[in-house]
Formats: sequence, structure tokens, C-alpha cells
Amino acid sequence: MTKKSFLLFSLVVLSMASLFAQKPERIDPPFWWTGMKDGSLQLVIYGKGIATTSASISYPGVSVRKEVKPENPNYIFLYLGIMPEAKPGMLKISFTKNGKQVSSVTYELKARIEGSAERKGFSSEDVVYLIMPDRFANGDLKNDKLPNYKDTVDRKDQYARHGGDIKGIEKNIDYIKNLGVTAVWFNPMDENNMDNSSYHGYAITDYYKTDSRFGSNADYKGMVDKFHSNGIKVIKDMVFNHCGSQHWWIKDLPSKDWLNQWPEYTNSSFRAASISDPHAAKSDIKKMANGWFVPSMPDLNQRNPLLADYLVQNSIWWIEFSGIDGIRMDTHPYPDADFMSIWGQKLMLEYPNLNIVGEVWMNQPAWVSYWQMNSPTARGYNSNLPTVMDFPLMGAIEKAFDEPASWDTGLIRLYDIISQDFLYANTNNIMVFADNHDLSRLFKTNEAVDINKYKMVMTFLLTTRGIPQFYYGNEILMAADKANGDGNLRKDFPGGWPSDTANAFLPEGRTQIQNEAYTFFSKLAKWRKESPALTKGSLIQFVPEENVYVYFRVHAQQTVMVVLNASDKDVELGMKRFNEVLNNTAKGFDILKKETLDITKTVMLPARSSKVILLEN
Amino acid sequence: MTKKSFLLFSLVVLSMASLFAQKPERIDPPFWWTGMKDGSLQLVIYGKGIATTSASISYPGVSVRKEVKPENPNYIFLYLGIMPEAKPGMLKISFTKNGKQVSSVTYELKARIEGSAERKGFSSEDVVYLIMPDRFANGDLKNDKLPNYKDTVDRKDQYARHGGDIKGIEKNIDYIKNLGVTAVWFNPMDENNMDNSSYHGYAITDYYKTDSRFGSNADYKGMVDKFHSNGIKVIKDMVFNHCGSQHWWIKDLPSKDWLNQWPEYTNSSFRAASISDPHAAKSDIKKMANGWFVPSMPDLNQRNPLLADYLVQNSIWWIEFSGIDGIRMDTHPYPDADFMSIWGQKLMLEYPNLNIVGEVWMNQPAWVSYWQMNSPTARGYNSNLPTVMDFPLMGAIEKAFDEPASWDTGLIRLYDIISQDFLYANTNNIMVFADNHDLSRLFKTNEAVDINKYKMVMTFLLTTRGIPQFYYGNEILMAADKANGDGNLRKDFPGGWPSDTANAFLPEGRTQIQNEAYTFFSKLAKWRKESPALTKGSLIQFVPEENVYVYFRVHAQQTVMVVLNASDKDVELGMKRFNEVLNNTAKGFDILKKETLDITKTVMLPARSSKVILLEN
Repeated sequence: MTKKSFLLFSLVVLSMASLFAQKPERIDPPFWWTGMKDGSLQLVIYGKGIATTSASISYPGVSVRKEVKPENPNYIFLYLGIMPEAKPGMLKISFTKNGKQVSSVTYELKARIEGSAERKGFSSEDVVYLIMPDRFANGDLKNDKLPNYKDTVDRKDQYARHGGDIKGIEKNIDYIKNLGVTAVWFNPMDENNMDNSSYHGYAITDYYKTDSRFGSNADYKGMVDKFHSNGIKVIKDMVFNHCGSQHWWIKDLPSKDWLNQWPEYTNSSFRAASISDPHAAKSDIKKMANGWFVPSMPDLNQRNPLLADYLVQNSIWWIEFSGIDGIRMDTHPYPDADFMSIWGQKLMLEYPNLNIVGEVWMNQPAWVSYWQMNSPTARGYNSNLPTVMDFPLMGAIEKAFDEPASWDTGLIRLYDIISQDFLYANTNNIMVFADNHDLSRLFKTNEAVDINKYKMVMTFLLTTRGIPQFYYGNEILMAADKANGDGNLRKDFPGGWPSDTANAFLPEGRTQIQNEAYTFFSKLAKWRKESPALTKGSLIQFVPEENVYVYFRVHAQQTVMVVLNASDKDVELGMKRFNEVLNNTAKGFDILKKETLDITKTVMLPARSSKVILLEN
Repeated sequence: MTKKSFLLFSLVVLSMASLFAQKPERIDPPFWWTGMKDGSLQLVIYGKGIATTSASISYPGVSVRKEVKPENPNYIFLYLGIMPEAKPGMLKISFTKNGKQVSSVTYELKARIEGSAERKGFSSEDVVYLIMPDRFANGDLKNDKLPNYKDTVDRKDQYARHGGDIKGIEKNIDYIKNLGVTAVWFNPMDENNMDNSSYHGYAITDYYKTDSRFGSNADYKGMVDKFHSNGIKVIKDMVFNHCGSQHWWIKDLPSKDWLNQWPEYTNSSFRAASISDPHAAKSDIKKMANGWFVPSMPDLNQRNPLLADYLVQNSIWWIEFSGIDGIRMDTHPYPDADFMSIWGQKLMLEYPNLNIVGEVWMNQPAWVSYWQMNSPTARGYNSNLPTVMDFPLMGAIEKAFDEPASWDTGLIRLYDIISQDFLYANTNNIMVFADNHDLSRLFKTNEAVDINKYKMVMTFLLTTRGIPQFYYGNEILMAADKANGDGNLRKDFPGGWPSDTANAFLPEGRTQIQNEAYTFFSKLAKWRKESPALTKGSLIQFVPEENVYVYFRVHAQQTVMVVLNASDKDVELGMKRFNEVLNNTAKGFDILKKETLDITKTVMLPARSSKVILLEN
């Protein structure tokens, strides 16, 4: 739509507005709370011609601060002030025209749950497990095909929905718990009512609604509660850069500048480096941040203050409503950087111990470090993003275990990345991983599966600094190659569907090697959970020699030595080199083999193996 | 020598000391100045048994602050205080024993040259030319073979001396000047009286003496003066990490801890990353910094305070004596990092406008940026090193011009490095280069020479941010591959020797393509010198597209547009994308072709070419 035709359209709509009922069809957020630190509330009131009326309320301790009417007359943005003394209850919003009330609606202010503000987010004490909800387990066949959703189940099509849902996840909480996981990150479960390829969740069509094919909002909250009662945290995936083209407000935009509009369709450059580049051309920043991901996902303009408030509130609403413990923000450098900084700040103000991890998909530690809160390198910019994802380390892992060692190949790759940690404001808040839903899995094919490599990589992720994240199926050696399509990276977990022949949720449904992988991971993850050294200790690393990488995690209560031998040779590793940490300790406990080791002189390391040794006093 | 045998040896020497004359054979530095900001002076007095005496002086305004006698009785470290009122002159140092004077010596305090402290070092306004003195020009055949130097001339041997000298350099100052160069960096010219392979200069055997095969100290100073009168600055190469095994004090160590001693010979790990690694094992830092480069170059222990003072003073002495404009410090991360910080600080205190560039040979901008003065990433460490060398950009240049463009290959490599400039405290003080004496030349073989690539690379180095540095022979397309030996990277400049058949110092001695290269470089270097945009302007870069890289240098007085087309296609480059800088400018002057261009719509770029366009008002 050109500017001119849009104006014309608006005028037509305005003049037609009085023909409509002028009553609210929808209010976002659906309810709110008293007792929030920030007492302001934006209500997005949507209804045909609603802006020809004026909204008012009368409720003790609540006042209208401003009423904003955007270009489109079907919207009122009503800003309320909720005083600390306001009590929970139903408040009435009246819509009047020429002094006469034309309609009204009630809006609920709930009582805030005690301790909500103090919730503790995920941290380096956690082990995070990423699940793509459509592909994990189908617990409710009735929600596979629903009347108002065009995109339905076809398990043979990698880009169709496969039917995974909340009930399926809940059925397997024991499985997840037994795995040793302490936090679950789900790809977005918000409504993605798109015509096709909606299974991944990143084309949101309603920011306040769980996709019915997964379950209801109440189901979502119920699932969070169940995870909590099992001692597992939940991380919600959020997507603010773009939404789905079938989003309800995309179909009736509040204003043209709600989106990043271009004269003709313009893709993002995907050059996130331009955002932090001190020499960047303004047009490059614009193309990167305001260009679209794909035509079906309109790029949101967070510089629009109404949208900015909408998004901040949406995050707070989900935290407060569902009780989640943290957020994973999609494509973090792509939305407006100044908005993202304010978003992080406002969330931290409301929930000071929350954690947020941003997807900063860049391959240099320098670039990634720029995006972490209080970055020393960000030249005055502060992202207010506590945690970043270590894509550079992922890139190193991808190569380090499959090649001979040289000056810059083999395990030295891991060392080279971690030695750049001086760039980061907080090295505990770095999420480490080998793969995720967008990446080839650790093994690209079943033929490539190498249990020794698996054990080394799992050992590394569970023992190095930061917050380890795993992708559902890692533990049963699921393989996938990005070259075969993104849908294939998100294969169904075997046993998640009633018709599945094998059920990998149960030991008897797993092959011998899968059980070996599962058990290895589970044992180490559970041990990690109780280990102050692995979860909170400082890291001391030694330059890898002959493709053997040794590091320690040191905490006042315990010291753990980790050894990775990625070489093809059995190595009798001399202990002398490490005496600055070993300090003549004579014995260690091999926590994987559960045996005591004499570590006075040497330790035997089979080729391509790892050891985690708890030093004994 | 073990500790025990060293002590025994010391005792024997002590008891024999009275047999010697106890008179000074040598004092370092050979003379000093009044009027320095720092009034302290360390005199290293060397003489058999000298420490059995006591040194004293009587000179107005000068006092002995302390007399330090190390393990070896052949040394006295006499610390003087020189008051501001002290006058130039000869001061007498007396050596007494049991109340009797056993010897004496006079020591000169010179008058400081006016304006010495205010000298302005090299900067981004300069174009630096690196010369290996032994391989540039042989101006004096008489110093090729000298009685006290074992290593002599054999031009057929890449590791032997070839006879280049100060007279040879002086003969060709006009050549250097006509090239458009404004500063010359020489590989070390200090004495390297080693048995072999001494030509490169990095095995110094006397920190206060120019190697006689190059000339005398007076010759060195004379050469600096001649460069200055031609408007060219001189940068002296210094080497503090190690010296040559034939150094006079290595043969009679002041104390065992003068060197980094190991129970058995230990190489440096060369893992400079461990120095800045916040997780580094102490032993890794020790091995990196205190391990030796090669057995023939003892590793100096700058934590010895006597040696630390010696080295600081040595730098000041050369600046003050010879009038140099800056320093290039060899292997900067290898000496003790705290000492290097103090060294930089003390030099800057004495010469606030001096510049020093450190060889930080690491391939990540993060690592390099750590070593620049006031680095935001150095976590409290401050190197006090104003300028670092852009090895990461060198690595990018090595590949960027010879490959097809993809997401991360081609000219995007240059962009990816430069976009990390937010890491640096000062992006003007980054030295950019394509090769040097330790690297394969831009072209590894004569067959690989590609004049189009040459022009693009020279254009890039002369127009991007920082201080461009070139290696002698770049301008005549000299080729060399490190795989064939380091000596081969340092081939003789043709025409530098009387017997040479071709003389590339003269146009008629150069091939047509060499003249084309020389002229291209010279034209652009000279234009750069007068261009405030290229020497001082801010940089605005655009993400390369289709292997075309466009950036601007913007200064209040002028704006310059640079375009590199490394693709194999002629490109008609649309100007619209650059309008935020072009601001509808209609005309530009192509400073290489010397023609006016219409830049309203497009500019034609032949395949593999560059353009430097001065915007016209």
C-alpha cells in the first residue's frame, strides 16, 4: 500500500466507522495485576471504529494516563496508571461518544502471586534441554487437526505439523527429569496460525495465545507448574523481530509504521556485524535491522512506541501469568537495538533475578560479547541482555573433535575461543551448546555417529564454564544434516507418537548404544547438578598439547579436573604440569567410572576419551 | 649452570677479584643528558672485580642514590640522581677500596637537544616502509668483512650476510622519498655479533652499538638526520624479549636471574593467547613468556629490576641520541607484560608524542586489541603500547583477493575484521600491512604476480583506517614464499649491489610492470600524504556486495570514496546506496586516472580494479 492509498483507506474507514458497533472485540493483554513495580499499563483495545469513542474508567487507585489513537480507527491504546493501593478486581471501561456511552467492557486486575518478582532465572547451575514442541511427543491426538487452523498434521512432510503438544511433553517429564536436566527451553508455543510451515513456532500470529494445537494458555501454565514441581525450570522462546503474516494486527495494522516498511520487499542483510561496527553505514544498519527475514514474517518496527510498550508488556505478562523462569530471545541483534536494551532493563526492573539468553548467531567472540549486558566492548551501548549464546564455541566444537591437531586445529579450537573470555562482562552467563534446532546435529548421519566423540563433547559441555544447553535427541544420538532441510533437524522423538514402533523414552526402546549415550549423559548431568565446582567454580585451563585438553573447575568446596583426549592415541598424561592446581593431591575420584585414581604421577587416557576427576583431600 | 655451581663460581671469582685491576672496562649507557624529565640514571659499570670497590662521584647537582652489586662481582649498578640544575660536563667516578682510590673514569653528561621531548612520532598521517638493512643496498664494500665479526658476506646463502649497510640506505633516500614514503622502519641495526645467521638483527649482542657491518653509531645518527632533512621519519626496531647468545653480558651474567632460566632448555609455547586468557594456568603464562625463542637467543628476565631499568634507559638513550621518531617493539607479548607496561609509560612520560608499535602476532582482533594502550578489553591491564599491528587484517588480505565471494570469503573478510574495531581503544593507531620480513610476500612466486591484485591491495592499505606499512620490494613486485626459508623473504633489492645487473632503484632498471607498480604506489602514496580524509578522516564502510567493497574517508575538508572490485566482472556500481555520504554530489575526481567522473547514477568498475574518488563540491 502506498502512503497515499493508505491515507485514503484510513479516511474511508474513518467515515465508515460510525456504521459499526464501536465496541471492543479484543483487549491486549487479556488481564493484568496489581502490585507490579511498574504501575503503568497499556491496553490495546481493538474494535471496529472504536477510536471514534473515548474510553474512561472509574476504579479506586487506577487512572487513565493517556488515550492514544493511531492512524487506524479500530484501535485505542489506553494507558492506565495503577497505584500501589489499587486492589484486584474487575474494572469497567466505558466507551462514550458525544457524551453518550456506546459500549463498555470489564477488565480484570488479578492479585500478584507472592514472590513473583524474586523468581530466580536459569543460571550456570542449570542444564538446559531444548525441545521443539511439535516434534517431541503427541499426547493429544484430538488437537492435531482443528477447525480454525489450516496447517495440519502430516508426519511424512518435514515442513508440516507432526502433532507434538503440551500433553505429550507432560507425559515425559519423568524422562526429562531422569536425564538430569534442570531447565527446558521450548521453541515458541504461541499461536502460529499460518497457512503452512507453522510447526517451528517463529511466525507468531497471537502474542497472547498458546497455539491450540499445543494446548490452551491454561495448559501451558499447567505444564510450567508441573515442571516446577519436578524441580525443572522453563524458558520461553520469544520473537520480537518479526511475527507471522497472519497475525491479527498485521491484517489490520494500527499504523503503517507498526512494521518496517520498504518501497519494495527487502530482505535483511543478515550482517549482524554492521550493528556493532563503529564504521557502519547507516543504510547497512537499516537493512540489517529493518530488512525482513522472509516475506511471510513481517518485520516489526520496535521504534514505534506503542508497539514497544506492547512487546515489553507481553514479556511481563507471560512471566507473571505462566511462572516461567527465563526467556530465550530469538534473533537478538535484529530488532531495534535501543528498544532491546530498554526491554531488558524493564524486565530486570520487574524481575531482578530473571535470566534472558539472546540468540546472537555470530561466529566471533568479539561480536557476541558486544551483545552481553555491561559489555566492556560496546562503546556505551548496553544491551541489558544477561546471557549470550556461544556460537563461536559451537563452531569450534563442530570441527575440534574430528581432525588431527595442529597449531590451530583439534582441541586448541576450544582453548582459542575460551581464551577470549576477557571480552565478556560475565563468563558464567554464556550458553554453550553443540547444536540446536537451526543447526546440523552433532552427527550429520547415523553412519557418522561416534560414541567416543559424543562422550567427549557431552563431557566438555557439562564441565566448561557457562550454561550448557542440549537439544532433544542428543541423548539418543539423533543425527541430522542441515543440507537436507531444516525440518529434518527437528525429527520426531521416537516413541512420542502412539503409532511409533520404537519408544526411546524407555530403556527397552533404545538401542544399546543409545542407552550408553543416555546413561553417560544422565550420570554426568546429575553429578554436575550437585557439584559446586562445575556449576559455580572458576575455570583454569591449560593449553592443549598433543590434542589433550586439561582444565579445572575450582570452588572453595571442591576442585574438579577434566581431561579430554581427542587424539587417536592412548596417552599416559603426566600430572606434574598441573601441580599449580593439583597441589600434590595424591588421589582423585573418576566420577564417570566411579573409581579412585592415583594421580601422583600419571593418569591413563584411552584414545578419544574423557575423564572427570574429583580431587580428594 | 646449577644454582650450587654458580654460587661456587661466584665465590671463586670474588676471591680472585683482588688479582684484577678493578677498573671499569665499560659503562652503559656510554653517556647521558642533563635536563631529562626523569632525573634518575642507572650506570652499569663493568670491570673485573669492580664490585670489590665502592663508586663515588662529586659533581654539582648529581648524587649517588644507590650502589647495587649483583651476584657477579664484575658489575656495579650505580644509580645517580641528576637534578634539574645539573650542568652538562664530564663527571668523575672514583672507585675506592679500603679508603684508597684504585681507579677512576670520566662520564659525560651532554646537553639535551631543544625540543627533544616534544618530538612527534609516526601516525596515521605516515606511510611506513620496512627495510631489512642487510638486504637493501651495499654502499660500503669495506665493511662487508670485518676482523671481529665471524659472520660475513655470502650472497648465495640466504642466511648469510649480504652486505647491505647505512651508506647503501643513504644512497637511496631519494628513491624512498620519491616512492611517497614518510617513515622508514629498519629491522634492528644493533650489533648482532653471532657466529651465523646474524643478518636479520634480532639476536642483539650489544644494545648500545650499531653493528659495524652497517656502520657506526655516528653513521646511524647521520642517517636519521638525512632522513629527517628529507621529511622522512625513522622507526627503530627494538628487541627486549631476548638477545643474542654472544651478548657481552650473557658471557658474564650479572646474576643468574638476568635470564629466564629453566632446569632444561625450554621453548616458548608461542601461545600468546595465554597471557590475556582470564582462565590461564600460571605455568602456561610462564612457558609462553619465559620460554626461549631459540637456543641461540637467551630469554631476558625483565622482572629483574636492574635489567628492567637497563632496557628502559636503552630505549631513551637511542631516542635522545639518534633522534628517532618511534619504536617498533619485537614480539611484544613475550617479555614480561607488567614490565612492558612500565616501559611504555616511562617512554611516554619522557616523550609524550612518541609512537610505539608492537608486534602482536595473533590472528584475532580480540587478542590484538588487548595489547593496545587503554584497551577496554584488558581487564585492568594497560600495555601503554600506543599502536598494534593488524595481523588479523593481514590474514584477511592474504585470502580476500584470490577467491570467489561467499558469505565469508572474498572482500567480506576485510569488512569482517574492520567491523570489529569497536574492540580497539584507538583505531587510528593500528598498523596495516600485507607482508613483512617474517611473512610470505604478497606474491609467493613471480608467476603469481598479478598487477590488478597489487593495485587493489595497495589501494586498500593506503586508504583504510590506520597506519599503512609496506615492505621494501612491494613496489617492484618482489615475490617470496616462506616455505622456501625466511632468508628468501629478505632478498636483496636489485641494484643495491655494485655487481647487480639490473638496478630497480632507477626506472630504466625496472621492467615495465615494475614501473607500473612503482608509479601506481608512488602516485597514491603522495596523494595520500596531502589528503586529510585519508590520513585523518573517519571511516564509513558498506557491507561488500558481489565482491565490491565501498568505503569512505570523511574529513571536514574533504571526502574520499574508495571502491574495490575484486570480482571477475566489470561492475556498473549504482551510487544510490551510498547517498548518505554522497549526499547527491554530482562529480568526483578519480585521483588515479586523474579524470572527473559523473557520480550521479553509476560508476564503471572494471573487473579486479580499484578507484579512489575525491568528491567535488
